[in-house]
Amino acid sequence: MDFKEELKKYQKQINQELEKYIKKQECPEQILNQAMEYSLNGGGKRIRPILTIATYQIFKQDIKTCFPYAIAIEMVHNFSLIHDDLPGIDNDDFRHGKPTNHKKFNEATAILAGDGLLNEAYGVISKDLKNSNPEELQKKIKILEEFSEAINRMIAGEYVDTKMEKQKITKEQLTYIHQNKTAAIFKISIRMGAILAECDDKQLEKLTNYADKIGLAFQIRDDILAEEGNEEILGKPVGKDKELGKCTYVSQYGLQEAKKILNETIKEAIQQTEEFGEKAEFLRQLAIYIQNRNK
Amino acid sequence: MDFKEELKKYQKQINQELEKYIKKQECPEQILNQAMEYSLNGGGKRIRPILTIATYQIFKQDIKTCFPYAIAIEMVHNFSLIHDDLPGIDNDDFRHGKPTNHKKFNEATAILAGDGLLNEAYGVISKDLKNSNPEELQKKIKILEEFSEAINRMIAGEYVDTKMEKQKITKEQLTYIHQNKTAAIFKISIRMGAILAECDDKQLEKLTNYADKIGLAFQIRDDILAEEGNEEILGKPVGKDKELGKCTYVSQYGLQEAKKILNETIKEAIQQTEEFGEKAEFLRQLAIYIQNRNK
Repeated sequence: MDFKEELKKYQKQINQELEKYIKKQECPEQILNQAMEYSLNGGGKRIRPILTIATYQIFKQDIKTCFPYAIAIEMVHNFSLIHDDLPGIDNDDFRHGKPTNHKKFNEATAILAGDGLLNEAYGVISKDLKNSNPEELQKKIKILEEFSEAINRMIAGEYVDTKMEKQKITKEQLTYIHQNKTAAIFKISIRMGAILAECDDKQLEKLTNYADKIGLAFQIRDDILAEEGNEEILGKPVGKDKELGKCTYVSQYGLQEAKKILNETIKEAIQQTEEFGEKAEFLRQLAIYIQNRNK
Repeated sequence: MDFKEELKKYQKQINQELEKYIKKQECPEQILNQAMEYSLNGGGKRIRPILTIATYQIFKQDIKTCFPYAIAIEMVHNFSLIHDDLPGIDNDDFRHGKPTNHKKFNEATAILAGDGLLNEAYGVISKDLKNSNPEELQKKIKILEEFSEAINRMIAGEYVDTKMEKQKITKEQLTYIHQNKTAAIFKISIRMGAILAECDDKQLEKLTNYADKIGLAFQIRDDILAEEGNEEILGKPVGKDKELGKCTYVSQYGLQEAKKILNETIKEAIQQTEEFGEKAEFLRQLAIYIQNRNK
């Protein structure tokens, strides 16, 4: 399997699907819609929706079933980025090498664009529920409930992260932040694909563990990149976490130890996918991609 | 019917029900939960959830069916107040005579508390879907879709309101703002009660018209109070709209004409309820309450 080719194929599928949800008509709130689109098409890697689809494909091939859920989780991800970047929270000026939403538009627009994306995510799911057969509803309503709980966890994680800035925190608190802020969304992305594909409970558990591990690994890699990444490739300033006195895996464990934990976490993630054989090869490669990513 | 007694009874029911949804356990995000509670229990009049329940009661009496939807709309209302008050949007310091959320806590907490309330509203509905009989799902999924569309409208209305500040706007633009920002949420509040009670299409249309009218009237009264209300009763400064050069019914039509439009709108709202006879008496009294409210 050529991982990079596969990744590009998935990204293209998601971008094409997203296009259908972008509102282009003239209306008084046109610029608000543009602000939502600006973030949605702002150069994200689409990892979360890809996780949904790639997980589904371990079991089934009609990936259209996944699309609304893949789109919804990408909207939620972008909502969280817009709000996290706001002056009142992380006060970031750049993301993916471009001005953040409130820098490109203004603060009011960015707040409302974030709100709009969170709400629209539920709009997409509600339309899918409306168009579903009665026998599909049970699993989809289960997903809706988990989806909302995952976002709840993400918001809580972001809150604790913000509150703990410049404070000395324990390793347990750091793990709490990462598990909530990042891993909860990775987990729901994967669980949505697995539940839609109707895998059994044991398989769901393995995939959930995989999600937990790569979610944590993603955040550790983020912390490493914030310390020693290349600003140009990364598209945002490096060294800001340190400057802000932010608690990260690097500040807590040191750079070398953080890298060691990252590598171990990826190894554990890959182990969880073994029973799925060749069909989970993409997920394994994706774990390695997360381990080594430069942006 | 003693309207004030009925109103109090409804408010008490909603406050008791809301209490079940307020998270009190110790956890790292405890203060975020407190910030959400601070707004939820901040002295609101509960008009939107009361609309849901009172509309349902025209047709049926087992009001428990309505509770999750009544709670969800109150959460959405409070989410919108927290975000509208933010420095980046209206920059308000007081609401219901108390510091606004970002003044009481801080900006980051207020942004995330608003996000949390919007998300939790969907959490409440998703739990109700999970616990519903299959035959109830169709109407509830219809509600979910309309709910999300109403919030979409509210966010658009708020955006246009913010964008138009200090600009000369047409009467059509002003109506657009009010219809989206305020009336859309009144409308969904009432439609949820009506759809849950399984009224017929003609009845739904009458009630939707009533909602449109009182939603508009509520906003016109808001504009009048912002001009000539009593600061102490209102719990927030008076005259700020003028100072900010905000477009309102008062700036657009003048105080006297705005009052005339208000009275006519209320009269039209009441007309829509006539066919429901005595059972809609509370909705009629509520319209008059909206017409005359001082806070």
